[in-house]
Amino acid sequence: MLFNRFRRGELRLGRVEAFSDGVFAIVVTLLVLELKVPLLGDPRSKGALLEGLRELLPKFVGWLLSFVIVCKFWLNHNRLLDDARRADYALVWLNSLFLLGQAFIPFPTALLGEYPSNPLAVAVFGCVMAGNTLLFIALQAYIAKHLLKPELVDSRDRRTIVRAFVGPLSYLAGAVAGWFYTPAGFAFYAVTPLFYLVPPETRR
Amino acid sequence: MLFNRFRRGELRLGRVEAFSDGVFAIVVTLLVLELKVPLLGDPRSKGALLEGLRELLPKFVGWLLSFVIVCKFWLNHNRLLDDARRADYALVWLNSLFLLGQAFIPFPTALLGEYPSNPLAVAVFGCVMAGNTLLFIALQAYIAKHLLKPELVDSRDRRTIVRAFVGPLSYLAGAVAGWFYTPAGFAFYAVTPLFYLVPPETRR
Amino acid sequence: MLFNRFRRGELRLGRVEAFSDGVFAIVVTLLVLELKVPLLGDPRSKGALLEGLRELLPKFVGWLLSFVIVCKFWLNHNRLLDDARRADYALVWLNSLFLLGQAFIPFPTALLGEYPSNPLAVAVFGCVMAGNTLLFIALQAYIAKHLLKPELVDSRDRRTIVRAFVGPLSYLAGAVAGWFYTPAGFAFYAVTPLFYLVPPETRR
Amino acid sequence: MLFNRFRRGELRLGRVEAFSDGVFAIVVTLLVLELKVPLLGDPRSKGALLEGLRELLPKFVGWLLSFVIVCKFWLNHNRLLDDARRADYALVWLNSLFLLGQAFIPFPTALLGEYPSNPLAVAVFGCVMAGNTLLFIALQAYIAKHLLKPELVDSRDRRTIVRAFVGPLSYLAGAVAGWFYTPAGFAFYAVTPLFYLVPPETRR
Repeated sequence: MLFNRFRRGELRLGRVEAFSDGVFAIVVTLLVLELKVPLLGDPRSKGALLEGLRELLPKFVGWLLSFVIVCKFWLNHNRLLDDARRADYALVWLNSLFLLGQAFIPFPTALLGEYPSNPLAVAVFGCVMAGNTLLFIALQAYIAKHLLKPELVDSRDRRTIVRAFVGPLSYLAGAVAGWFYTPAGFAFYAVTPLFYLVPPETRR
Repeated sequence: MLFNRFRRGELRLGRVEAFSDGVFAIVVTLLVLELKVPLLGDPRSKGALLEGLRELLPKFVGWLLSFVIVCKFWLNHNRLLDDARRADYALVWLNSLFLLGQAFIPFPTALLGEYPSNPLAVAVFGCVMAGNTLLFIALQAYIAKHLLKPELVDSRDRRTIVRAFVGPLSYLAGAVAGWFYTPAGFAFYAVTPLFYLVPPETRR
Repeated sequence: MLFNRFRRGELRLGRVEAFSDGVFAIVVTLLVLELKVPLLGDPRSKGALLEGLRELLPKFVGWLLSFVIVCKFWLNHNRLLDDARRADYALVWLNSLFLLGQAFIPFPTALLGEYPSNPLAVAVFGCVMAGNTLLFIALQAYIAKHLLKPELVDSRDRRTIVRAFVGPLSYLAGAVAGWFYTPAGFAFYAVTPLFYLVPPETRR
Repeated sequence: MLFNRFRRGELRLGRVEAFSDGVFAIVVTLLVLELKVPLLGDPRSKGALLEGLRELLPKFVGWLLSFVIVCKFWLNHNRLLDDARRADYALVWLNSLFLLGQAFIPFPTALLGEYPSNPLAVAVFGCVMAGNTLLFIALQAYIAKHLLKPELVDSRDRRTIVRAFVGPLSYLAGAVAGWFYTPAGFAFYAVTPLFYLVPPETRR
């Protein structure tokens, strides 16, 4: 019965998208704040600056990984909300939880960039990304079940759901691999978004 | 007479919403900046990082509370502006005051996360949230009185207003409880947004 | 002839507004980052925290002043772009210059909050705000001359332009007054936005 | 074949623009965070504050350069997406790569402001801007080839493409010049956006 009340409430999808786009845009842009200008003994020394930039390398890598991952989430979110015929309270709260996960990403990214050879930092990054993918899947499943546009009902395909689980499994595999050998974690995190670069074969 | 001039001015609701969505999105995303990467003596030590993350726990809790609270405000704001048939100067200024309160939220959140066992920090958080709810109620009352869409006039219900006051009272109760026993404040702040998770029974 | 090329280019007002709303929203929200949590010797001491908050008072005042001023600019910008029938390159560049001024506001605000009794800090704040108002007037004059919606041409009124100059003059007066007696500067800055709280008598 | 899959997927241009506008708006506004309030021995001393502001001069210049450059990118991006008839996966990823470059801009700007007389800092700024222009050209070329609105196909002009390469060449020239004499780099960076102030002669 409580669940039924969640399903009520007619909300405008346009504002849900505007709010979400704002959060996505801020997350990807805030990531750059972790790239701090290196401190140099001699401000005119090219060699010292080059050395300082080289030390920032793990932070650059973390920044790049998270940027691509958030763009991938944005892209899938864009497609997903386009499938919904309207927004209700449950959709808004599932979407807010998903955005909570997105807004959290700068923290594990900073952790990974600061301690790239700490197994816990590498594993935390993977677990957070796996969690984010699960939050996305929850939103996706709810829309598929309750809010799908009528014309899309037939085009749904089990393979989309199966494919969705590649993400969390791959991030978790990266977390486990990174716990034993940190560069393996980075490799998994770099490869995972590639699964989502192109649209699925079977839809639209 | 001055009041009458406030009621003039035809403004576009679309830009009021875009500005508000921007502020909401930035507030929820900026909150993460308070979660600072812990400093470790040994950058490769899993134990030291785990300990550092554990010390961040109050900041995680504060971040989570404020995120959920701002999402709740966003949701109610979304519904509220949908009820208005147009924007005038009074609406814009009441909305700006409300956004002022929202944009302030990262400060009491940081205070709560930094000093979770300081009664004043816990009480300030509750008072700010109570103030924010009052600003929302002012905006709501103005729209209900002056700018309601004609088709909604009959559906208005006293219970909506009564329900609205649950928020500030509960936050204030949390502030008082937290003054004497800080964990009680946290409990109140966690429970309050739950009153608004589902739409009211009586409308739409 | 170069000027004529500036007047070409058909651009969408919708994106000019979206970009501007984004900048406005971020400026008002970033201002809160200047409010830093005070450092306490004893993290549980209510007295120490109260003292710390009291020392933040000038920063609160600066934050409040700038928030209200930026909201006023946003409101006037909202009305102004509604008068334009389309966007050309000159409008976009004048708008970008105006946004440059808005995006700069966090800096003089931080200066004012950090050194409230330094005459130069108080004067800089007023000069920046006067400059911003002049940038707004330039945008306004360009739209009035070249891009006004046909139905608005007759309703233009000299008083609107005269009224517009109240802003920069008042901010400059505040800068001068603040140079000799800093609280006088604060008073001027608090009073100036009040001139724009209500729409002008003569239009719409 | 993989390339063909990139070309699938019907996405809404409106959300691509909203996300992009968000990133642009945040980038230009975040730049101001590099302008840190100077520390003064005597907080009331006008002379000390003036001296402190003078030392910030290179940061002001860097802020100004990057602000104008990002506004120029925003303006060209605005025009470009207006030419596309729809969005596909390839457009979204090329756009994301372009935004990655934009979101990176605060870092070389901070580098330039902090070490204005370090040849490497000056050269990095130019190289990043050249890279950003190339990413823009890639997006432009893809849209011109695959997604151009039918009515624009005839109006395409080789000169637009040639003109586009002025940007990266000029930024690279600035990087080389700045390597040998840093002020020359600043001069190039200030002049380059001027090429794009007005729309091209031959289109629309």
